[in-house]
Amino acid sequence: MNSIKRFGVSIESNLIDKFDRYIKSKNYTNRSEALRDLIRKELVGEEWLQLDKNAAGAIVLVYDHHKRELVDSLIDIQHDYHKIIISTQHIHLDQSICLEIVVVKGKINEIYKLESRLKSTKGVKHISLSKSTLAEDI
Amino acid sequence: MNSIKRFGVSIESNLIDKFDRYIKSKNYTNRSEALRDLIRKELVGEEWLQLDKNAAGAIVLVYDHHKRELVDSLIDIQHDYHKIIISTQHIHLDQSICLEIVVVKGKINEIYKLESRLKSTKGVKHISLSKSTLAEDI
Amino acid sequence: MNSIKRFGVSIESNLIDKFDRYIKSKNYTNRSEALRDLIRKELVGEEWLQLDKNAAGAIVLVYDHHKRELVDSLIDIQHDYHKIIISTQHIHLDQSICLEIVVVKGKINEIYKLESRLKSTKGVKHISLSKSTLAEDI
Amino acid sequence: MNSIKRFGVSIESNLIDKFDRYIKSKNYTNRSEALRDLIRKELVGEEWLQLDKNAAGAIVLVYDHHKRELVDSLIDIQHDYHKIIISTQHIHLDQSICLEIVVVKGKINEIYKLESRLKSTKGVKHISLSKSTLAEDI
Repeated sequence: MNSIKRFGVSIESNLIDKFDRYIKSKNYTNRSEALRDLIRKELVGEEWLQLDKNAAGAIVLVYDHHKRELVDSLIDIQHDYHKIIISTQHIHLDQSICLEIVVVKGKINEIYKLESRLKSTKGVKHISLSKSTLAEDI
Repeated sequence: MNSIKRFGVSIESNLIDKFDRYIKSKNYTNRSEALRDLIRKELVGEEWLQLDKNAAGAIVLVYDHHKRELVDSLIDIQHDYHKIIISTQHIHLDQSICLEIVVVKGKINEIYKLESRLKSTKGVKHISLSKSTLAEDI
Repeated sequence: MNSIKRFGVSIESNLIDKFDRYIKSKNYTNRSEALRDLIRKELVGEEWLQLDKNAAGAIVLVYDHHKRELVDSLIDIQHDYHKIIISTQHIHLDQSICLEIVVVKGKINEIYKLESRLKSTKGVKHISLSKSTLAEDI
Repeated sequence: MNSIKRFGVSIESNLIDKFDRYIKSKNYTNRSEALRDLIRKELVGEEWLQLDKNAAGAIVLVYDHHKRELVDSLIDIQHDYHKIIISTQHIHLDQSICLEIVVVKGKINEIYKLESRLKSTKGVKHISLSKSTLAEDI
């Protein structure tokens, strides 16, 4: 069971004062909540260095759908990686530009490979990967 | 009209050889395509330093929906920022963990504020922001 | 005076167990020390978003000193910014390649300008900026 | 020999116009110089993903030298890694705060280990690693 543990922490008063101002500016309700966030952020960062671990995330693509055969190519690539793709959402940013969000869950090196395949497709203007987590034990 | 411009580039042979190996490993079909991607990546990076400019992106949240009142809080916050939210997609990662993708489009400082509000909500375990682009002129 | 404050923190047992393994793998001697580091890292990250604040750091340059007039140009630029440069250290990586470390202390936007000037100098192969801190109150 | 290769690049006019403005704002003298920098930045980024490759860089430490035994600990650690440390430079930021720059050259995973050892030393307030390059073939 995931009970709550309580323990004491010692921090220099200058540092904790400054952190308290940060906490307030970010709308945190208490120190524990803010510290938990810092811990999780660090741990998720570490997770993404281990290529054979599982993670979740989202690949955000921006492309021009007028580009010949681009949409077909993107669908082909995504099918090659269907095992790690949960869903794809599509937004029409303007007359020609599309924003597509590919939600992924699987081995980190597979996610990187998929990102690389999509990125190098002619017509894809920008790609960014949100490195998130399955939140197992965090 | 967005015509194609062709121009000459001079690069040391060692560097271009190494870049050609990189291009091949990333499945690019030619140098121009790879260079366009590097240029766009740099320009989008610069865009996100200008807080009053518009951009698009996705905020990826991971949270435990069992947490009391969390889902209500997240919906309330998202409504406060409905003008910059295009859509929200929800994935059930397991029995209790949710992955939510909030697609955003608007002023960059507003996007950061929304991120900050969501991040500090009790029960949100991780947040990551994909900094993408409206691809105007790029 | 910078006394030590002690306070209680509540964290889910799964998360703190995982953090304890992280702490051990990173050779930390206790949780407080690791938490202080996470807090400072976050606060320093925030500092660098405020362009008119003061900070310290190091700009690491790699260049080929055989490049005509490069060394003169770099010295000229550094003199233009002598008010924010504490010292410059020079390493001969091999027959032609130099690694130069410019230690800086001053307004963050001035540091960025100096970085930009050095980066665009013909012959500079790589530049990276270490964003550190004057450690006032942290 | 590292001769200069000249080749043609095709880029959409909107994108190259925007890039030209970027180039001007960054004081680049021509497109080739700016493109070379983008290529090298990308390649150096890739290098640092390969832990068994060699690289150069600088670890920037901030610490309070009044902390008991801290200076001794830092020297001990640095001696354990003397094979990858080229030199160490020390700046007195104020009465108690030191900025120390450890210039490193060696296997990337060794550099990371050294960083981790220094970071977890009690009294070290902040650490940042500048990921640079030996500039072999770039």
